[in-house]
Formats: sequence, C-alpha cells, structure tokens
Amino acid sequence: MTPAFELEGETATTHHTNSANNGANDNQIGFKSRVSVIGSGSWGSVAAKLVAFNTLNLSSFHDEVKMWVFEETLQSGKKLTDAINRTNENVKYLPGIKLVKNVIGDPDLDNAVKGANIMVFVTPHQFIDNICKSLVGKVRSDAEAISLIKGMEVKIEGPCLISTYISEQLGINCSVLMGANLASEIAEEKFSEATVGYGKNREIAEQWVQLFTTPYFMVTPVQDVEGVELCGTLKNVVAIAAGFVDGLDMGNNTKAAIIRFGLREMREFCKLLFSSVKDDTFFESCGVADVITTCFGGRNRKVAEAFAKNGGKRSFDELEAEMLQGQKLQGVPTAREVYEVLRHRGLLELFPLFATVHEICSGCLPPSAIVIYSEKKPRLPV
Amino acid sequence: MTPAFELEGETATTHHTNSANNGANDNQIGFKSRVSVIGSGSWGSVAAKLVAFNTLNLSSFHDEVKMWVFEETLQSGKKLTDAINRTNENVKYLPGIKLVKNVIGDPDLDNAVKGANIMVFVTPHQFIDNICKSLVGKVRSDAEAISLIKGMEVKIEGPCLISTYISEQLGINCSVLMGANLASEIAEEKFSEATVGYGKNREIAEQWVQLFTTPYFMVTPVQDVEGVELCGTLKNVVAIAAGFVDGLDMGNNTKAAIIRFGLREMREFCKLLFSSVKDDTFFESCGVADVITTCFGGRNRKVAEAFAKNGGKRSFDELEAEMLQGQKLQGVPTAREVYEVLRHRGLLELFPLFATVHEICSGCLPPSAIVIYSEKKPRLPV
Repeated sequence: MTPAFELEGETATTHHTNSANNGANDNQIGFKSRVSVIGSGSWGSVAAKLVAFNTLNLSSFHDEVKMWVFEETLQSGKKLTDAINRTNENVKYLPGIKLVKNVIGDPDLDNAVKGANIMVFVTPHQFIDNICKSLVGKVRSDAEAISLIKGMEVKIEGPCLISTYISEQLGINCSVLMGANLASEIAEEKFSEATVGYGKNREIAEQWVQLFTTPYFMVTPVQDVEGVELCGTLKNVVAIAAGFVDGLDMGNNTKAAIIRFGLREMREFCKLLFSSVKDDTFFESCGVADVITTCFGGRNRKVAEAFAKNGGKRSFDELEAEMLQGQKLQGVPTAREVYEVLRHRGLLELFPLFATVHEICSGCLPPSAIVIYSEKKPRLPV
Repeated sequence: MTPAFELEGETATTHHTNSANNGANDNQIGFKSRVSVIGSGSWGSVAAKLVAFNTLNLSSFHDEVKMWVFEETLQSGKKLTDAINRTNENVKYLPGIKLVKNVIGDPDLDNAVKGANIMVFVTPHQFIDNICKSLVGKVRSDAEAISLIKGMEVKIEGPCLISTYISEQLGINCSVLMGANLASEIAEEKFSEATVGYGKNREIAEQWVQLFTTPYFMVTPVQDVEGVELCGTLKNVVAIAAGFVDGLDMGNNTKAAIIRFGLREMREFCKLLFSSVKDDTFFESCGVADVITTCFGGRNRKVAEAFAKNGGKRSFDELEAEMLQGQKLQGVPTAREVYEVLRHRGLLELFPLFATVHEICSGCLPPSAIVIYSEKKPRLPV
C-alpha cells in the first residue's frame, strides 16, 4: 500500500491557494504525518487507541497522537487531561481501558491540532460548529480530515453533512468512518468493523484503512461519503421503529420486517438526496450491520420500547430524562426532520415507515400504527 | 389486478403438449381455481390458513382448500386428519390455532391434488422426492406450483433447487415463497412478510401475492426464483456462525459484522451459481430479514451457540440429539455442501465465512476461528 500522506498527493495540493500555509511545505520525502484526534469521549478515546497503535508501527507517521480533551474537573478535584496523561486511561469516559502510551491528551484545541496533517473528528455533533469556527485558519492546508460524528441535521434545503461542514469551514478534504461499532466493545478488543466513506482519492481511503485497521478492527472503504454518513443518522429512525415493535411484543417476524423496511427506506432516502449514493453501501458495516446493532441494542430502541409499553402516554422527553441520564435521543428529532423533507417534496407515501415513526413520536398515531401502514397494497417492483 | 388463473394465460398453455390432460380444458370463462396444499406441519397449516382466508373472498377461486396430511395416529388413538377436520385445528403441529373452515385435510395424496390447478408444496424437504414421483401424470397440465420448502442440497454439479425439481418432475411451472416467517407468529396473526420468487410470468407472481396476502401477511414478488430459494438454504450457514459468536460472548459488533459478511457471501455465492440472481433480492424478506430472524432465533443458532460454549468438544450430532428432539440442523450439512462446491471451484478464499463455518463444524478449527479469518487484509472494492 502506498503511504499517500508522505507524498505530494492530489489532495495535498488542492487547497494550497485558499487556506493559510500552516506547514504545508513539509510535504517532502521523509515527512512524517502527525495525527490529531479531536474529541475524547468513549468513542474518541477508542479511536485514539486504534490510531496510536498504528502510528507506533508505521514509519510514515509520528508516534505521538494528540487527543483534544474538553477539559473537566473530576470529583477528585483533578483535571481530566492530567488524569488521562498520568494514567494513560480516560478515567471518566472509558475507565479500565489503557490507551496506547503515545496518546497525549491536550485541553488546548489550537495546540492539539498544531502541525497535524491528519485530523480525526469525533466529538458530540453539537460541538462541531464551535470547534470548526475556532480552527479556521489554524489547520494545515494539506490536512486530511475524517469525521466519526453521527447525528447531522436533515434540513429541507438538504442534509447538513458534518463532513461537508468540516470540509467547507476548514478548506480541507473530509472523509467519514461509520459502522456497527459500540465503543465499549472495541475498547475490549472484540472483533468489530467499520466503513470509510471517501470522495475522489482512493489513496486517501487506503490511508484511513491503514490508520484504523487492527487485528480486531476491520475497515472497508467505499467511495460514497454521503451514503455512509447518512446511514449513521437515519439508522436511529429505524431503531425507534424497532423499539415500538419490541414494546408491543410483536415478535421476530415483525421486527425483521420493520428493520428491512427501514433499511430500504434509508437507501431510497439517501438516493433521493444524493443521486451518487450507491446501493452497495447498504450492505456495508455502516448499513445493514449498524442497523442491526442499533435495532437490537442502543438507546433509541430502548426508549422507544418504553414509549410503546406505555401506549404513547408518556412523552419521549419524559422517558428520555428518566432513562438516559442527560443523554439525548437522536432518532426522534431525525424522524421529524426526515418527515419535513418528505412532506416538503410530497413524498411521504413512498416512505411509510419513516412517516409513521414521526407520526407516532409526535402523538398523532398510536405505537401500534407501526405496522398498519403495511396493509397498503405492496408496490410491485417495475 | 387481473385474475390470471381464470384466463387462458401464458402458463396455462405452456405444458399442454407434454403432460396428461387432467382437466386442463377447464380453462374457460367462469372457471374457478382449485387450491391444494401439500403438507400439514406447522408451516403447511399456516399456509393453508392464509390461502383459505383468500379463496373465501376471491370469486376466481373455489372456497375449499385441500390440505394433504401425512397421516398419523395420535396418542388418543384417533387419526390426525380426522382431528383436523373435526376441530378445524392441527392439534399436533399447530395446536390452539383455528384454521379457516374451508381447509379440508385429506390423507390421500392423489385425492388431495385432484382437480387442483394451484399447488402449494410445503413439506419437509426430504419428502419431496417421493411426493413428486407419486404425483407424476396425476396433476393438471396447466397447474401452477409454489414451493415453501427450505433445505435444498447444494451439489458440486449445481444446487438441486426444489422448485426446479418439482417443475421438472411434474411438467409444471414452480415459483417459491421464502422469508422471515416463523410459522407460530403468523399463526397468531402477528405482522409478517415473505418474498415470492417467480420466473417469467408476472401475472403468476401477482396471483401468488393475491393468494397469500392478508392484513397481517405482506408478500412482495421478485423475478428471481434461484436467488430467493437459495437464500432460504444458505441463511442457515450464517446462523451457525452467529451462534458461534453468541457462544463465545463476542458482543454485538462482532455479531452484526458476521451477519453482514454472511449476507454478502450468500449474495456472491448465489451469483456464482446463477448469473441471473439480483442484488436486490438480498434486501427482500428472504434475504436480510430472514437472515436476521434466523441469526437471533432459530435452532441452527441455538445449537451452534452450545457447540461454541463447549469449545467444540461435543459434536453437533450429540448436541442436536440432546437439544432438538429429533429435528435436524440444516446449517451443518449445507455448510459442508457449500464448502465442497467452493473447493471444487478453487474459490474457498473468496468465501472465508462459509469456509470457516464448515472447518469449525468438522472440528478442523476451534469455534474462536470464526473471526480469525477477518485478519486477512480486507479486499478493496474495484
């Protein structure tokens, strides 16, 4: 595999003209890539662990992986960053798991990305706006980014892909990594996999594969940023539907059917928004595998199950507050956004599952309506 | 929807020349189709219930649905067929579920199919050989068949599709119906769905949809008999792999990954055997949905889980005898057959999951090997 980041590749020159020259001239033979991980929750810490395992073993990378830490004071009175650097463990968000020693926490964002030409974004989605704004003009013009962030907004004027946002704000290329990957299980080195969605440059995709792959973590690249990223958001709507089925004790056949309808509507919805989206993306980890994980585990499924068990009489807000200790469900707002897009385009009838999920969440229909739409005559394929 | 069976359709004339004329001249205006269900296990009884619900309501069908019963003497000393006809319930294989009153059990195979131009085959797969042989020359030349039977053999010279076997033996067209449909749940009228795989004639497909669809049972036709039927067999190999993952407590990510790899290998294997097989078939109920149901429930998964928990030290034969009360696992012999086909063609490396399942079942590899193959470099898509 060619270590593309060592060379003056396509992307390295693409943005030379429209961004500050923060070290971009380092692109010469012998140059070593520097990786910065922006985010240090459980998934961020695991991502840093995966990447740092590889930078130690790949000669084209500096060993050190900087991890930006949103600073917090622990109950002990100590700072989270200090604790991470002293114990090589994220004691708050990934306790019990040793990160690789070359992961260095840094609470100063500017400092954490300084000199980095490889940037891994893995924060909660509501943080990305401020992070990007504060980074404008401070990143290398030849940097390559990847987003592991799920939860974009799907607005009527089009979905706000987080990868597109990062790319536009910082003037750099941005790929995505999504898939059936519960952080806690990867942390324990249980076999897992993910999908990298990349744009034009295949060498970049191969670099991401190289940087994330470990014996227990398999990464497959597909040339479909939009499809891969949208999967990570839309699956939560399907998980809400699956939770209703569980709450109503409808059985295995129904649940499998609902998951399948959901996967099909995800595919059709993505293709509606981006004609470039590929069918095959939905056979990848970001597609079918992530949908399965989310529909059998995950908090969207869990709260939707409770919602259905209560016959819709207790609101999602109430159940969320009670069950999730401050975490928020993404499936409910995403279902609303998707509904608005479909209504705006006059396409609600073509997406009965997505439409019904929102109508149940908003109290217009009872949870049992999750299968009623199926009584409509099935559309015969052309 | 045009009631094709009332008309002199394409299929009605296809076989006029090569089969006995058993009532084929009844193809005139006003002719009513007669349905025979061959088989009366739990799935056969449910199929009869679905079909009989529709024949009552469709003017193009005789109300009566004959169901061939493999006669047994119950513990009470009574005959199973008498019990079915007296109580309108299959007291042995589907107790507690009332069939529709127009289902009539008949222990005489010849009598059960007499005059039928619609034949639903739903027996255990090991019975179909004798059934077909005894029916040669006794079925209407214009009859249409559908097979609900899973478990074909995959021989080196090609898979013996049961639909093809029925078609060739009886000189009639044969479609298939497969999907995520546990009989007990459909019996309770929980929402379920299935896929009809049909050959050339779209009107025939629409008839099967009409005959099986109820408010709680949705049927989708796809023009891909081979893909649909093969799914029903190959999924059991994937379920064995999923069982190993469960037995080793490998977690949700691993299981989702294994299911996805399995689905992808099913697709590639089907396309290898029949170039006509469509990618989209694997998004249908017979594909992704049935794989999910089988990998989370089902006996193949269950016994494979026990096999892995025992570190492979107790054989499948032993566990099967202990856990399944005489029922046989299909996944283990199918994995062996698939392995032989792949070895014969020199393609084992392209199907690491299928190959590994057989190597574990046969004791050549430990159960933990189910994910070791994944350490191989992932193949990048072209």
